[in-house]
Amino acid sequence: MANWIWYPGDFEIYHGMRQNFDREERGFFWPAYWHIADCRHHVVFHGKFTPEKETVFRVTAKGEGHVLLKSKAEAPEGFPADQVFYQEKKYRIGEWISCPAKEVRIDVVLGNRTGLPCIYVEGETVFSGKEWTVSDFVQPAVPAGLNGMYENREQDPQEFDYTCEICRPAAEEKINGGILYDFGRELTADTLLHINGAIRPQTVTLCYGESRAEALDTEWCYLKQVLKIPGEEEAEGLKYLTDSPFGRWEDGRCYHTKLRAFRYLFLTAEYGTLEGEASCLITPEALYKYVDFGKRSDFSCSDELVNRIWKVADTTFRLSSGIFFLDGVKRDRWIWSGDAYQSYFINQYLFFDKDICKRTILALRGNDPVTGHINTIVDYSLYWIISLENYYKMSGDLEFIRMIYPKMESLMRYCMEQTDEQGFIYGREGDWIYIDWAEMDKEGTLCAEQMLLAKSYESMAAVRGLLGLDREEFVQKKEQLLCHIRRFFWDEEKGAFIDSYRSGRRNVTRHANIFAVLFGFADVLETRSILEHVLLNEAVPAITTPYFKFYELEVLAGLERFDVVMAAMKSYWGGMLLQGASTFWEEYIPGQPEEEQYGMYGDKFGKSLCHAWGASPIYLLGRYCMGVTSSAVAYETFSVKPRLELFDRFSCYFPVGRGTVWMDWKDGVLDVYTDKEGGVLSAGGRDYALIPGEHVLVNRG
Amino acid sequence: MANWIWYPGDFEIYHGMRQNFDREERGFFWPAYWHIADCRHHVVFHGKFTPEKETVFRVTAKGEGHVLLKSKAEAPEGFPADQVFYQEKKYRIGEWISCPAKEVRIDVVLGNRTGLPCIYVEGETVFSGKEWTVSDFVQPAVPAGLNGMYENREQDPQEFDYTCEICRPAAEEKINGGILYDFGRELTADTLLHINGAIRPQTVTLCYGESRAEALDTEWCYLKQVLKIPGEEEAEGLKYLTDSPFGRWEDGRCYHTKLRAFRYLFLTAEYGTLEGEASCLITPEALYKYVDFGKRSDFSCSDELVNRIWKVADTTFRLSSGIFFLDGVKRDRWIWSGDAYQSYFINQYLFFDKDICKRTILALRGNDPVTGHINTIVDYSLYWIISLENYYKMSGDLEFIRMIYPKMESLMRYCMEQTDEQGFIYGREGDWIYIDWAEMDKEGTLCAEQMLLAKSYESMAAVRGLLGLDREEFVQKKEQLLCHIRRFFWDEEKGAFIDSYRSGRRNVTRHANIFAVLFGFADVLETRSILEHVLLNEAVPAITTPYFKFYELEVLAGLERFDVVMAAMKSYWGGMLLQGASTFWEEYIPGQPEEEQYGMYGDKFGKSLCHAWGASPIYLLGRYCMGVTSSAVAYETFSVKPRLELFDRFSCYFPVGRGTVWMDWKDGVLDVYTDKEGGVLSAGGRDYALIPGEHVLVNRG
Repeated sequence: MANWIWYPGDFEIYHGMRQNFDREERGFFWPAYWHIADCRHHVVFHGKFTPEKETVFRVTAKGEGHVLLKSKAEAPEGFPADQVFYQEKKYRIGEWISCPAKEVRIDVVLGNRTGLPCIYVEGETVFSGKEWTVSDFVQPAVPAGLNGMYENREQDPQEFDYTCEICRPAAEEKINGGILYDFGRELTADTLLHINGAIRPQTVTLCYGESRAEALDTEWCYLKQVLKIPGEEEAEGLKYLTDSPFGRWEDGRCYHTKLRAFRYLFLTAEYGTLEGEASCLITPEALYKYVDFGKRSDFSCSDELVNRIWKVADTTFRLSSGIFFLDGVKRDRWIWSGDAYQSYFINQYLFFDKDICKRTILALRGNDPVTGHINTIVDYSLYWIISLENYYKMSGDLEFIRMIYPKMESLMRYCMEQTDEQGFIYGREGDWIYIDWAEMDKEGTLCAEQMLLAKSYESMAAVRGLLGLDREEFVQKKEQLLCHIRRFFWDEEKGAFIDSYRSGRRNVTRHANIFAVLFGFADVLETRSILEHVLLNEAVPAITTPYFKFYELEVLAGLERFDVVMAAMKSYWGGMLLQGASTFWEEYIPGQPEEEQYGMYGDKFGKSLCHAWGASPIYLLGRYCMGVTSSAVAYETFSVKPRLELFDRFSCYFPVGRGTVWMDWKDGVLDVYTDKEGGVLSAGGRDYALIPGEHVLVNRG
Repeated sequence: MANWIWYPGDFEIYHGMRQNFDREERGFFWPAYWHIADCRHHVVFHGKFTPEKETVFRVTAKGEGHVLLKSKAEAPEGFPADQVFYQEKKYRIGEWISCPAKEVRIDVVLGNRTGLPCIYVEGETVFSGKEWTVSDFVQPAVPAGLNGMYENREQDPQEFDYTCEICRPAAEEKINGGILYDFGRELTADTLLHINGAIRPQTVTLCYGESRAEALDTEWCYLKQVLKIPGEEEAEGLKYLTDSPFGRWEDGRCYHTKLRAFRYLFLTAEYGTLEGEASCLITPEALYKYVDFGKRSDFSCSDELVNRIWKVADTTFRLSSGIFFLDGVKRDRWIWSGDAYQSYFINQYLFFDKDICKRTILALRGNDPVTGHINTIVDYSLYWIISLENYYKMSGDLEFIRMIYPKMESLMRYCMEQTDEQGFIYGREGDWIYIDWAEMDKEGTLCAEQMLLAKSYESMAAVRGLLGLDREEFVQKKEQLLCHIRRFFWDEEKGAFIDSYRSGRRNVTRHANIFAVLFGFADVLETRSILEHVLLNEAVPAITTPYFKFYELEVLAGLERFDVVMAAMKSYWGGMLLQGASTFWEEYIPGQPEEEQYGMYGDKFGKSLCHAWGASPIYLLGRYCMGVTSSAVAYETFSVKPRLELFDRFSCYFPVGRGTVWMDWKDGVLDVYTDKEGGVLSAGGRDYALIPGEHVLVNRG
């Protein structure tokens, strides 16, 4: 089986640029405001074969170039017999090439100015796959990149293969001189606009909404397109003539827009002198485009609110996960490292898809040399480093770790260049010290940032250990840094880590303290103090984003404060449901007036209503409430420790690596079943070995 | 007047990639085999204006993005009144934007994955030009790039604006079952193939030739295309459906190929069962595409052979000069630094076009950081460095020198990293030590390479001096290197510089010795010795490329050995004319059998018959025989010193910066006239100040 191959990482970088250029707002594009890496446009692929008999092969390519076949030849007279000579001949791309039964080397030289240079070589013996190497005329050749999605000649790796589904509106309503279509749920879809009537409008206006209010606000809706309708006589050529980043006429009767995120579509039409009901002669369809990640987990329990939270989180997360883990689907549609970092965890309890992790990691990182922080944010560079250790723990995929490691080290060293005499990382001009949308004392170096740096050193040491490299430098770096963090940021009186020390304000927010516990840096006494003085202290300002709620609740769950976790989940995520959310939002401020609830960044509809970081209940339920965790690399051993006291009954299953664990709890009996070796169940105060294919039943202790 | 603007250097880098991907051979492409830089695809342009009254502007762009208008606003309450605040609003590209009468800053954020991001801003007060800056999200903003070619909104800087001319065949001949068309001279042209008859062929085969022999050799001709002819019914859509890098159907009756270099075109047609004369129903036209550099010089004299050499050199050089100085027009169509270096000199005596120099310099150099030598050739990196000093001397264009200087220094330092304890530059793996197509002892470090290195240090010192930077490092580097060159490479016994010293063979070729004199490194005694023992010594292998003939004859002309120069010019270039050349060749080996004369690189028609480096007689005639030289920067002062003894009569004119100098020599009287200040004529043993508008007449002394 042949694969399309490319320069490793470039498929992801190419699609990453497309993705990061794809934010749309009120008729214009908004390419991300940081450096977006570009794929190489000029490469040469190398294959090496020794067919046992004469054979043929054919190269298909995206780009222009040629095939150079070098077959081993006798040394000419006068040269030592053991000196290697090759006979060379150039061939066209696309032609069947005869290959002799001897050692041959194949070079495919390829340029593709406008896209991703990639090839597909087919033949019985000679075909493209992971044994091929590729070079970019700068670095020595490296193993070619490929993935399991592109195994057919007819495919084009420059286009991502989405699963597509035509969706028709679930409801329509005549209102405000137009028709409001409700597709029943949020979609990421192209719009197909069919002009049916003999009477053709002059213009059609499409106003989209994640909420009903947004679609009906023709002035302030975030996504809007005004379409001039061509005359009846227009034909085929229209398809090419009208091709724009916003869409194109498939023919004179069907306009096909670019992909947008929406649930509601409000259509109005202008007919010139004609007026009235004519707009119903236009019918919209949504061409829903998604990646079918399959169903690897489910959860339902005796608490209907929790069930709804699970379902809405599932919808939110699936919409936000495509080629890459995105922040949100209407906005920004960008790949953000901090957002992605949380998605890696949620993914582990929902799809367990390794490929989207790898794609996101590669797209985020771009190319060496490092020219700035990922997304310009110092914390986001650090999350990226940490994410590699996490990815390995989840997947056991050492091949990927080996391939990416040089970029891990170069980014780590880039970060280390901006540390002060205490070893604290600081922001340079143009760097963004983010952490969270929260008021924090950011004068001088920030404690939360140092926690991430210490965790990065730990991840570097761990990954270097995996690769057989010396760990010492980073082990020491981490220890030293933690020592300085304690000395400079721990406030004995407040019993907490302060934001920063330069200003002398000794301000306490939750963030650094959450990290201290989350990463295991706080000892038992510090942890107890943080719980009391910060986490359960209402005087410390509450977290307002689902983003940091994730870490806060994870820490509380880790400390077994499920009372707080479940109450928070139900009030916070449940609160959004009460406000009509059918996907979880970027931000939720309980008690905010309804007319303000869709606004953010000074924009009436600026808030993303489908934001990946809103889906953390999946992780909290799977990882903590149901207690499913890997206790070795890639679930070689795993433990299952459901908190039976939280629910009267539940029924769920979760991935444990390639296997699954099923749990049913009802009428005081827990039934656990798995198809995977290595599991241990903890329930009712006891441990049970899980044997694949055998049910373990535990009665209420 | 508004200009299209882009990231400085990126216009040239973008077109450079197109150019270096454009080599075609027997139905496939051959992208250059070295790293080709790519333009940035994601930039933000910055403008700053303070209109006196409210005004409007509009942004046109290649790429997707938006316009951010920031107008200065009052400081909100509670902020110091002198703190600067801006009110921000985003607009679409393409819409007229109202701009208030106050200080505004305009950002145009732009992404263009597939091409060159560039903008054109039009308005009475607000428009794009050289005051704009641009940033790439990595480096601080720099002044925007622009040139005089793109001043209209309707233009697209992604397409180079050639002058076009339809050419019809000068002659046709029925032969070998097809028709051979002779366009009378070599062209760089698209082919338009018109299908006229009611009887349509199934396929048409186009075989091109720089020579008649090549076009008629349907198996081995370098450029060939087999075209399937669509049925009668095909219409408009064909244009888009058949668009390929090789050409497309304009409609069902006209196929439009890509640009190719040819003089002859041999057409055959397949009609299935029909046979015979039908092929005459297809008529070809050539859409000649060129840059009209205008006529800045001319030369004719009493020697008809020299006149023909001038004319053919002129044709050769004009064909090879387009967006960039190319090596040759059929092959390679690549931008080579060593070839371009010679073109800069020829240009100075033919077009005097500064823009093509700048374009070529920028495209060759690409981006920082340096990842390898220009064209992989160490000598070609050094020529690039030297060329900047030359460009300044010719143009006085300090603005360009200032803009390019960081890339000059980084390339110089890259070269300095590969010098040994003697300071000699050596080749690393993947580096090509070229110098010339000649047998040379390349064991260890090569003398000719060190001569170029010394000249590079001299150029660095000169350019740093211009920019007010310290010169000392490079002055010393040069002196030290010259001292070591003498110690290690000068052979007292042979009275010449040897190729290299490691092998002990102490081999002498012309190259290093030519450089020693050319760059003024050899003292009077050394020069005399080199002349005797190398240049006039037939035992030292002759130069076989016009490339090094350039330097050899320049040195001999500088030593006033015009007897040798004129004899060589007439025999070598005259020899090509005798072989039927209508443009000058890449290589000419007198006495080579006719059937082999078009071959090179083991390819029967591999030789380029129109190669820029063949045009050096223009330079030799203008610079040395007519003695027109700048004696200060950019011809602020210049001297004219015609060698009257070489011709019975001549009539010529040459550029002297923005001005021109005319000379007529006949019947023993020299008449010199110029429109430019600063000239001094040396003739008949005397100097004469040239006064603009006044003729100076000198009688034979």
